[in-house]
Amino acid sequence: MESFEFLVPTKIIFGKDSESRVGAEIAARGYKKVLLHYGGTSAVKSGLIGKVRQSLKDAGISFVELSGVLPNPRVSLVREGISLCDHENIDMILAVGGGSVIDSAKAIGMGYYYDGDVWDLYSGAAVAEKTLPVAVILTIPAAGSESSPSSVITNHRLTLKKGCTNEITRPIFAILNPELTYTLPAYQTACGAADIMAHIMERYFTNTPDVCFTDRLCEAGLKTIIEMAPIAIAEPENLNARSNIMWCSSVAHNDLFGTGRSQDWGSHAIEHELSAIYDIAHGAGLAIVFPAWMRYVYKHDLDRFARFGKCVFGIEPDSNDPEATALKAIDALEAFFKSIGLPTRLSEAGIDESRIDEMAEKCTVNDTRNVGGFVPLKTTDVAAIYRLAL
Amino acid sequence: MESFEFLVPTKIIFGKDSESRVGAEIAARGYKKVLLHYGGTSAVKSGLIGKVRQSLKDAGISFVELSGVLPNPRVSLVREGISLCDHENIDMILAVGGGSVIDSAKAIGMGYYYDGDVWDLYSGAAVAEKTLPVAVILTIPAAGSESSPSSVITNHRLTLKKGCTNEITRPIFAILNPELTYTLPAYQTACGAADIMAHIMERYFTNTPDVCFTDRLCEAGLKTIIEMAPIAIAEPENLNARSNIMWCSSVAHNDLFGTGRSQDWGSHAIEHELSAIYDIAHGAGLAIVFPAWMRYVYKHDLDRFARFGKCVFGIEPDSNDPEATALKAIDALEAFFKSIGLPTRLSEAGIDESRIDEMAEKCTVNDTRNVGGFVPLKTTDVAAIYRLAL
Repeated sequence: MESFEFLVPTKIIFGKDSESRVGAEIAARGYKKVLLHYGGTSAVKSGLIGKVRQSLKDAGISFVELSGVLPNPRVSLVREGISLCDHENIDMILAVGGGSVIDSAKAIGMGYYYDGDVWDLYSGAAVAEKTLPVAVILTIPAAGSESSPSSVITNHRLTLKKGCTNEITRPIFAILNPELTYTLPAYQTACGAADIMAHIMERYFTNTPDVCFTDRLCEAGLKTIIEMAPIAIAEPENLNARSNIMWCSSVAHNDLFGTGRSQDWGSHAIEHELSAIYDIAHGAGLAIVFPAWMRYVYKHDLDRFARFGKCVFGIEPDSNDPEATALKAIDALEAFFKSIGLPTRLSEAGIDESRIDEMAEKCTVNDTRNVGGFVPLKTTDVAAIYRLAL
Repeated sequence: MESFEFLVPTKIIFGKDSESRVGAEIAARGYKKVLLHYGGTSAVKSGLIGKVRQSLKDAGISFVELSGVLPNPRVSLVREGISLCDHENIDMILAVGGGSVIDSAKAIGMGYYYDGDVWDLYSGAAVAEKTLPVAVILTIPAAGSESSPSSVITNHRLTLKKGCTNEITRPIFAILNPELTYTLPAYQTACGAADIMAHIMERYFTNTPDVCFTDRLCEAGLKTIIEMAPIAIAEPENLNARSNIMWCSSVAHNDLFGTGRSQDWGSHAIEHELSAIYDIAHGAGLAIVFPAWMRYVYKHDLDRFARFGKCVFGIEPDSNDPEATALKAIDALEAFFKSIGLPTRLSEAGIDESRIDEMAEKCTVNDTRNVGGFVPLKTTDVAAIYRLAL
């Protein structure tokens, strides 16, 4: 194991009707004026936003609203949010939604105190030292942003999608009511499952030896999603499945599973280039990229892929032919993604090879950085992975 | 799953030489005068206390020392600590040691602000609302007290050992250097393993259905200890084993594994009566009590015991005879405890039946409370469990 520090300051409030406590939780922390940040009309139509407004009013919290967050959230709306917080003297941000809304809220929070354009915090030109606090009512279990220090923002003008990891952006509390996820369509549930699994696999494929505790935690998370996602898709109001998925999605990305081990994150970087250009769902992009990434890198550590096959998919390892076991494991992952209705090839998402070289160059910033910690990838490697995924 | 709240505010600082950062960590939080609290001479002889003193001095932190904490820490020393903090204007407590030292520090911290005798907080007569902050340098992975809200204190005059769970007592940070555990004797390492496993099993045996995520997390922890404890005993300086055990021990008792599920805690209560009278190591007492408790309650949920056998010990379940599978699982647990050198019978610890009825009555407070959440036990049940353990 490697040295590490670990602290998740986000209070998790999990259970039925927990969203009705939001006003009281904010008032207890002494905040007075909130930016209520959310996406489209579904949260309004479902009655959730109305319930949140009422809870805030009941607690004597004033608020202004900024809706319109889209999947792959835009820096343009973030800039609007920063201005709004400034003019309205906002002292905290309440994100009601999934990862896109939370990430947008995190960017607004950091941008509020940053003396410059907020995109600097995502391009890598600057690091935020202070943020408005962000709290969350989660409606989509996927990104894990509700207790993670990460956010991802898209700059459409530059066709760039960039992530920022900064411990100050972990939310102060996150309300998780699994019943709020009953209305998620099957496809979005499946995309969430792929995203959760990807967060675990980015940590699972490590070069750090002797990490059996976190290996097993990762396997526990992966098996939970593999068991529960098909149930949630078949029975959208299955509380058991929705609950286990929702709690697993948070733990999967709060970095407990990554403590003391090197991590990869190559597939995420490769996927970000896809969704920056083609605007496909992040989870669908990951379901396409991850099997291809695995087929490109598996020879680096056959034993790890064999363990993945055995401990996650129950594939009995063939000690005479570890390569066959590894390939079976990758096939099993791809088959699982297919079984829950996700694309696993670029062609299925309507993406051809025309922009592969451009994406690969952007991903490695023209070979000025390696992509991935498990196997460091150069532009030619990334392009080969896109081609394997065609 | 049940509703829950979850927050671990303890910053974990894990790795080689991490104890040298203690002064800086305290100074960064603005504390000025520390009570340095520890046990006997081993921490001094090993050089650890000297290193801690130096780190505090280097950071400009003044401190007074209170050593002499014994296993099953006494309320008498706690009272002494409270007076000392009062006279010396202490603003935080640094516990250097294992669960006993940390628990003693937690009791001092709460007692400092409590207007009455600190034992009230353990007898159940009062609940603390404020505490001096406690930080930890851990030397024994077992109790999990370094990030838990729990502490256990012994009142020798009353021959009572009582626990207190209060969220305000979670330490502010915990330094975990697995190398500090190299000098733990085999027996103490084994006792720690039993304690860690007990913390997980108290959560695993639940009446809450549909908790597959936390079930798997529990199984991950149990398998880790079953794999790593024998290695640490055979090779005390095996960094891999010591690291995985140390991190697992903290996570096992920070209550992540218990989120959203009812828990038992009967075996802990039954063991506390043993160690209050006989002063045996808590882990050894648990290795005696847990198999007996299981043999008394297993019929309550054969499926859960069969799952325990399959997922923790790899016992193939016999669907025609689930009872046989359950009994095999209990035998496997007892055999594991024996294999690492622990007693699994009262007779092996030199304890006879003479005080069984007294212990059973104290445990249930003369049948005024049920013991255990999985199967609520009365005095006659507890006495029967002690007899099964003879």
